[in-house]
Amino acid sequence: MDIADWRKKIDAIDQQLVALLNQRCECALAIGALKRERALPIAEPVREDAVMANLHTANRTQQGPLPDAALDEIFTAIMAQMRHLQSAPD
Amino acid sequence: MDIADWRKKIDAIDQQLVALLNQRCECALAIGALKRERALPIAEPVREDAVMANLHTANRTQQGPLPDAALDEIFTAIMAQMRHLQSAPD
Repeated sequence: MDIADWRKKIDAIDQQLVALLNQRCECALAIGALKRERALPIAEPVREDAVMANLHTANRTQQGPLPDAALDEIFTAIMAQMRHLQSAPD
Repeated sequence: MDIADWRKKIDAIDQQLVALLNQRCECALAIGALKRERALPIAEPVREDAVMANLHTANRTQQGPLPDAALDEIFTAIMAQMRHLQSAPD
């Protein structure tokens, strides 16, 4: 496979990533609404630690090659965006 | 659905995200190896712009709710990690 073929594969993966990130965002917005109803804090470091632990467990079942440290950076960005949208859903 | 139910849904989505990010990383490493063979630069701003344009097109076909700006922040982190791994694959 040449560079252009791998890029087509990446573009197809990105389509799926966009769909999943939208689904994840829907869930985060639903949680944000429930938290506001109950006057709970939006930021929950204990839950975020649990999410990271789940990710590391999931990553161990993969063939790799993504290191946990890279996954942590990516999900730090994902959770920051979700937290931001939970805080300002409109 | 309560907060715990939405979180279960998020955890299931995250399993799929980890799998896709590993697949994306495999592609990026394959491209990195080809670039090294041909002495091509690892960082390619024009390709990264094309990736972002693909993401925005994909995002328009979704029901939402993730804004393009949030997607940009998330994929900036994804591409930074992939670029880093392409540069130092071992």
